[in-house]
Amino acid sequence: MVIQYDGTEYVGWQRQPNGLAVQEVIENELSKLTGEHVTLYGSGRTDSGVHALSQVAHFDTEVRMPGEKFCYALNVGLPRDIRILYSEETDPAFHARFDVQKKSYRYYVLNSTHDSPFLHRCSNHIHYHLDIDAMQSAAKLFCGEHDFNAFKASGSAVDSTVRTIFASEWSKEGELLCYDVTGNGFLYNMVRIMVGTMLEIGLHRCDESVITSAFGHCDRTRLGVTAPAKGLFVARVQYSDFDTADFVNRGYRCF
Amino acid sequence: MVIQYDGTEYVGWQRQPNGLAVQEVIENELSKLTGEHVTLYGSGRTDSGVHALSQVAHFDTEVRMPGEKFCYALNVGLPRDIRILYSEETDPAFHARFDVQKKSYRYYVLNSTHDSPFLHRCSNHIHYHLDIDAMQSAAKLFCGEHDFNAFKASGSAVDSTVRTIFASEWSKEGELLCYDVTGNGFLYNMVRIMVGTMLEIGLHRCDESVITSAFGHCDRTRLGVTAPAKGLFVARVQYSDFDTADFVNRGYRCF
Repeated sequence: MVIQYDGTEYVGWQRQPNGLAVQEVIENELSKLTGEHVTLYGSGRTDSGVHALSQVAHFDTEVRMPGEKFCYALNVGLPRDIRILYSEETDPAFHARFDVQKKSYRYYVLNSTHDSPFLHRCSNHIHYHLDIDAMQSAAKLFCGEHDFNAFKASGSAVDSTVRTIFASEWSKEGELLCYDVTGNGFLYNMVRIMVGTMLEIGLHRCDESVITSAFGHCDRTRLGVTAPAKGLFVARVQYSDFDTADFVNRGYRCF
Repeated sequence: MVIQYDGTEYVGWQRQPNGLAVQEVIENELSKLTGEHVTLYGSGRTDSGVHALSQVAHFDTEVRMPGEKFCYALNVGLPRDIRILYSEETDPAFHARFDVQKKSYRYYVLNSTHDSPFLHRCSNHIHYHLDIDAMQSAAKLFCGEHDFNAFKASGSAVDSTVRTIFASEWSKEGELLCYDVTGNGFLYNMVRIMVGTMLEIGLHRCDESVITSAFGHCDRTRLGVTAPAKGLFVARVQYSDFDTADFVNRGYRCF
């Protein structure tokens, strides 16, 4: 399934004891619909307040409803801030998380005098002047294979901290800045630390050398603060035979 | 002042006994700020759930704070779904409602298979196919001076029901349809009845002759249903020496 959600009201994708998770809400609807205890496997977790333009998830069921009908049946019962945009039956061997080849995130910054009543849930408002050229130049430095050890939340343990970034770019639509990044994987809080660091660069509080030097050390404290969750979206997920690009590029800004 | 608001959580612009109004929220902040009992006069009322890209309002105060500072001071205390985008001291003779020369409304329709978690508060979702060409042709019929008696909510009393429409046009950005209309004034529910009627035409449930024939009768029941409030925005207000266009056309879709 391809899922879109406004994460403002949720504790994130994954079930948590301290509040409602997106996964949980959809699993509950799936269980009502199928009469089975259904587990939903997402392409990855998202933090509290992070959104999805296209999250991918799979589940197993014995129910013989055609795969493409599930989205319609689920949307009837789901809250309006979660929509299933697409569903299909897939190879039983497919796994939404383990089979990911490339993933893209997007981050919106509203660089204006006053915040917007319409965009405040889904963008990070900064009223100081941002040097977009400096941020664009910094964004390019992330491309390629690097050790992103310094760009992960302290305490998160993984086997390897080396990741490859295929594209990293800012774009601008009036006062709305948009950062798009595609990689073969991301560490915990990695995109938000990358954005936080580029914002410090855009504010001329440091220069882009903090990024290149960070590839050689593991010191999280020498980078910018973690940018707020509310500007971040899971934007696109690519598998060998499935790509969510069409659900993001629908000819209008999705939020 | 130029005010932007997401009307979802409010009973409308004007104070009501049954819930919180936008006017009331801003008046309360103004009273806190000035220590005076302040009345805020808007360019016009909006219904429950209707939004504003730029509403104009004025008030009188004895406080000697520079006019351009009020927006910053007020935004500190206001909820995030209401923002004052601009404020200035004006001629004491200026009246936000009586001096309006032209007013523009905007209506968003999301014409897609599934609704959007991000746009559902500010657009009317229709999953049936809409014939945009038929709607565009119908929109043109509203231009000029007409008796809009049939296009007002029943029970609303006004001196004259003749209004002049200067521009009336649909545009399309992927699956998002946008209707912009400018006139010298609008009757109660007029834009929502116009949109509701054009949507019936777009669904091929009636043809555009219902519009031209409606200019000759007063029968509200022969037109389409009133379109939902949540797709409607006060978009632009024009006075002889002040125009809010810059607050709407900021180089990005404001919602």
